[in-house]
Amino acid sequence: MQKKNVRGMEEIVKYQLVLASASPRRREILSQAGLEYIVRPSDFDERSIGAGAAPEEYVRALSRGKAAEVYRKMAGEPGASDGSAPSVLVLGADTVVAHRGRLLNKPRDRADAAEMLGRLQGDSHEVYTGVALCRRGEDGREELRSLAVKTEVYFYPMTREEIERYLDCGEYADKAGAYAIQGRFAAYIREIRGDYYNVVGLPISAVVQELKALGAWPL
Amino acid sequence: MQKKNVRGMEEIVKYQLVLASASPRRREILSQAGLEYIVRPSDFDERSIGAGAAPEEYVRALSRGKAAEVYRKMAGEPGASDGSAPSVLVLGADTVVAHRGRLLNKPRDRADAAEMLGRLQGDSHEVYTGVALCRRGEDGREELRSLAVKTEVYFYPMTREEIERYLDCGEYADKAGAYAIQGRFAAYIREIRGDYYNVVGLPISAVVQELKALGAWPL
Repeated sequence: MQKKNVRGMEEIVKYQLVLASASPRRREILSQAGLEYIVRPSDFDERSIGAGAAPEEYVRALSRGKAAEVYRKMAGEPGASDGSAPSVLVLGADTVVAHRGRLLNKPRDRADAAEMLGRLQGDSHEVYTGVALCRRGEDGREELRSLAVKTEVYFYPMTREEIERYLDCGEYADKAGAYAIQGRFAAYIREIRGDYYNVVGLPISAVVQELKALGAWPL
Repeated sequence: MQKKNVRGMEEIVKYQLVLASASPRRREILSQAGLEYIVRPSDFDERSIGAGAAPEEYVRALSRGKAAEVYRKMAGEPGASDGSAPSVLVLGADTVVAHRGRLLNKPRDRADAAEMLGRLQGDSHEVYTGVALCRRGEDGREELRSLAVKTEVYFYPMTREEIERYLDCGEYADKAGAYAIQGRFAAYIREIRGDYYNVVGLPISAVVQELKALGAWPL
């Protein structure tokens, strides 16, 4: 945001970026891109979003819920509105995998992961990440913007033995779709179409474009 | 390679993978995918390849030159042919960036890097990596296979100030095209079409498919 200050010069509002996610992958991506941030994981109840929504709408709704929840918590903290601290800009994000119209979340266990990779091998699927940014708008009210980014991912065919060997490394746990593109599974990814970091968990270049649109880049 | 042994059973030949490159990025990609290897950088003279070749042919020729040079060096070492050690499989690789028909190599200096990024911003370009695998064939002679993998990369538009700020981080040195997709430059990459790791320097999934075709997977 650029405003005229008392001398009529343009002034850049400095923001404190707040990541409303406990994901170590999202932290790594922000750090890699050189962004400074603090972490305040959200307690947003994911079950409040209807599971029947289209993937784009589902991840946008979840990311909005996370960002707004953390923004409101911080706005209620002492010193939040004394004007001396940098403005808070809260980033919420959520990632899902969609295969032939079906959403794949994190696997329940190894058998569930084997079933997911059995479906995904030799085929393409989509990864959607929703990103929401929440700040105090010019009118003093909460301002919430969100977007969803899609990346298509193509897997090589895998034998049952290759799937079992991959599962042995344990990487599948805690990953939507049961694989980590940034880990050993790189061996089986033929091609992607879209942003690689979106598959890891945060479409960093789209986030930077959004920060530019908000006048908040460089942070 | 599967051969019948004296009992008529199929036997998997175990290979020692040898990376004929000093690139730390290629080492990291092989390690990430769980491959074990040793490093023997090549002394192949890159100037022996005509610069007028098409990008695919140029990187294939360079990767073949590197793999064959290291294979021959190792074949001449004592103990190389006593049959007790695992067979050697040498991997050579080379990466170039092509923009509107022009090859971009590593920048000479910061000014050259600024000029490259000025060309690439807001546009698409292609990254080509050639990979060659060299081993002792069934007839006892050197067997050399190679392939080239292309990834299209799309950059967001960048201001002159953004380019200068990126150059400040120093990452451009030693990178074809003056950027590192796996570093801070992730902030400006809108999309890729192809293998991400091909842009980093080694198309790991294509390498694994080639190892499978050679009967050398899992290593």
